[in-house]
Amino acid sequence: MLAGSGLATAALVAAAGSGIAGADPVTSGTGATEPFYGAHQGGIATPEQARMAFAAFDVTGTDRSGLAALLASWTVAAERMTQGQIVAGGTGPFAPPGDTGEALDLPAARLTLTVGFGPSLFDGRFGLGAGRPKALADLPAFPGDALDPARSGGDLCVQACADDAQVAFHAIHNLARLGLGAVALRYLQFGFGRTASAGGDSATPRNLLGFKDGTDNLVPTDAGAMDRFVWVDGADDQAWMHGGTYLVARRIRVHLEAWDRSTLGDQERTIGRAKASGAPLGDVHERDTVDLSALDEFGNPRIPDSAHIRAAAPATNHGAAILRRGYSFVDGVDPTTGELDAGLFFLCFQRDPSEQFVRIQSRLATQDALATYLDHTGSGVFACPPGPGLDRPWGHGLLGTSV
Amino acid sequence: MLAGSGLATAALVAAAGSGIAGADPVTSGTGATEPFYGAHQGGIATPEQARMAFAAFDVTGTDRSGLAALLASWTVAAERMTQGQIVAGGTGPFAPPGDTGEALDLPAARLTLTVGFGPSLFDGRFGLGAGRPKALADLPAFPGDALDPARSGGDLCVQACADDAQVAFHAIHNLARLGLGAVALRYLQFGFGRTASAGGDSATPRNLLGFKDGTDNLVPTDAGAMDRFVWVDGADDQAWMHGGTYLVARRIRVHLEAWDRSTLGDQERTIGRAKASGAPLGDVHERDTVDLSALDEFGNPRIPDSAHIRAAAPATNHGAAILRRGYSFVDGVDPTTGELDAGLFFLCFQRDPSEQFVRIQSRLATQDALATYLDHTGSGVFACPPGPGLDRPWGHGLLGTSV
Repeated sequence: MLAGSGLATAALVAAAGSGIAGADPVTSGTGATEPFYGAHQGGIATPEQARMAFAAFDVTGTDRSGLAALLASWTVAAERMTQGQIVAGGTGPFAPPGDTGEALDLPAARLTLTVGFGPSLFDGRFGLGAGRPKALADLPAFPGDALDPARSGGDLCVQACADDAQVAFHAIHNLARLGLGAVALRYLQFGFGRTASAGGDSATPRNLLGFKDGTDNLVPTDAGAMDRFVWVDGADDQAWMHGGTYLVARRIRVHLEAWDRSTLGDQERTIGRAKASGAPLGDVHERDTVDLSALDEFGNPRIPDSAHIRAAAPATNHGAAILRRGYSFVDGVDPTTGELDAGLFFLCFQRDPSEQFVRIQSRLATQDALATYLDHTGSGVFACPPGPGLDRPWGHGLLGTSV
Repeated sequence: MLAGSGLATAALVAAAGSGIAGADPVTSGTGATEPFYGAHQGGIATPEQARMAFAAFDVTGTDRSGLAALLASWTVAAERMTQGQIVAGGTGPFAPPGDTGEALDLPAARLTLTVGFGPSLFDGRFGLGAGRPKALADLPAFPGDALDPARSGGDLCVQACADDAQVAFHAIHNLARLGLGAVALRYLQFGFGRTASAGGDSATPRNLLGFKDGTDNLVPTDAGAMDRFVWVDGADDQAWMHGGTYLVARRIRVHLEAWDRSTLGDQERTIGRAKASGAPLGDVHERDTVDLSALDEFGNPRIPDSAHIRAAAPATNHGAAILRRGYSFVDGVDPTTGELDAGLFFLCFQRDPSEQFVRIQSRLATQDALATYLDHTGSGVFACPPGPGLDRPWGHGLLGTSV
């Protein structure tokens, strides 16, 4: 057996000699990388990558030190993968490989990995009550919710974003493998979004409704807006959450067949924007300022009362704004109806969900004409800690541990 | 309402004036395009694109002329989409848009659309018995099949491949929309594969097992091999099938959790190749010739008797070879086990499935060590007609119609 695999094995075990942390990268290309360490986790203010794999896990044990060890091992693996390296070298033909291998020849593709803690993690199993983030609470039920428990919740989440689907999947695959026996995969959502071919980084991608989506989003490079709306100030929350944020994930199925049969005029009045240009109704250019008080020649609001962009606007929601970061999904056909099971995996980041997402969604669920076409089929809320450091793995602040 | 959407609507209706066929493209970029008309359909010998959306449809009516009209309308739409154009201009705000719009700003991304006819299309509903392709027959049951009827079969299939996931989905979305009332979507599989970042076009992509996949595949530019193994000769089959081929699709779920726990040596002996390099066991380079008779120093076969590449090799199967064109899929978590529902959507093209895929799969199902890790959860076989022409829409030869 050794004779057959000697040379090939060499590459996979080359990193093993010097220990995991000092191993050389084996991947042939490096590609663009995003920083892993820092004040904030990657995958939040990071320019949106083209592909996403989002996983929720349940912790199977009740051992706090086991949870800390898992998060520490994930941190080491995540740092390596985001820098285009394999998780670990193997130890020869008689052991499983240290990396599952499907990204061996692929560059880092701007991979980011973002961890979050769900409300259920603070239910007493791990004695974490005193460290519970102040703004972490289960979302309320909204009118029209059609949540599938199997696609909702989770003790932990990991958002993997990369410009290559295989790289994003590889990251979740390996974290799930490392977590074997400590965590169980609860759900995994695969998604796609902004693509390199979409007219450059400045072009606004379209969602599956055919509309440009994200025109009025918060701008991640606007530090003032990020501090105001996204990053937690440790003085207002648990100190360990300083530089962290709260993630809300909603799997929003779109009834595309019904949408496709609606008229162009109906679609545009439902959204409040023109389909081709993305301009607010009555305006010309996508980036024209949305004037919610503007009237048409008959004295009616240009942006209808029930338009999506009116219901979602900060001005309608006491100034509440969120950083959106969603991906389209296509999960085949709904066997009960024969219709497409496709839509938007909506992700947003904020300082306080109750003041931001919950406020906005409460209005959308009752006043947004678009809600007719949507089913919210999955939901999760997670506290994302600040960025890890060399001696501060994920969970360090919460669990008081180091590698 | 008109006031609000006038300018924006203009772009979407601009193409309407001169009729669909003469409309100008509205998409802003063109990108690389693949030819739509020709002796063979695109998406078969075409260099593999990075993304796939594969749909199977059932025809809901029993009207032969209705089927012909559907296929003709699909042909017009498909030609336009493959060339980076919208399906059709709309007719203003009081009608649904002529295109769903999510690819409006995207280039053609080398989109190809490939149609096939399933055995069920010839069951008498359309009076097509006399035109039935000679080699079109339901696949036999194989040992270990775990087929889900909802992911198998179909009267018609459409394979959409493109370098952009949104472009591939857009194509299926619009054909399904055009088929409303005439066909019902049976299943839709989304997949990913070779990526632009994978070291250039010559690099062999890896599957989710972490192994290079496709090293010994037929080479689509080898016209002799394509004529011998892939393209139908009308003298041997229905004349209208000349230049066509047969497609077999298998949704192969991989039990990644079990695979990940197997040792590197086991994995390499299961496949018959080294994981890192892709070389046949005992050799050095990926492209080294596979010598199934080579022995190691102990007198045992270098490529084990149960190795996947031995069981699949043409030499083991009376020379049978197929053109493989598979894509990896990730469909989340299997709710019954909590394991990943991921694997390979295997597509292959051939002149005669009974002599090629069926022969090979019969051996793989019983002699391939890899079969332990696999479940075949979906299956389909389709006769793909030759390439369409300006006056020969899809279905022309079979249904005797023209646009």
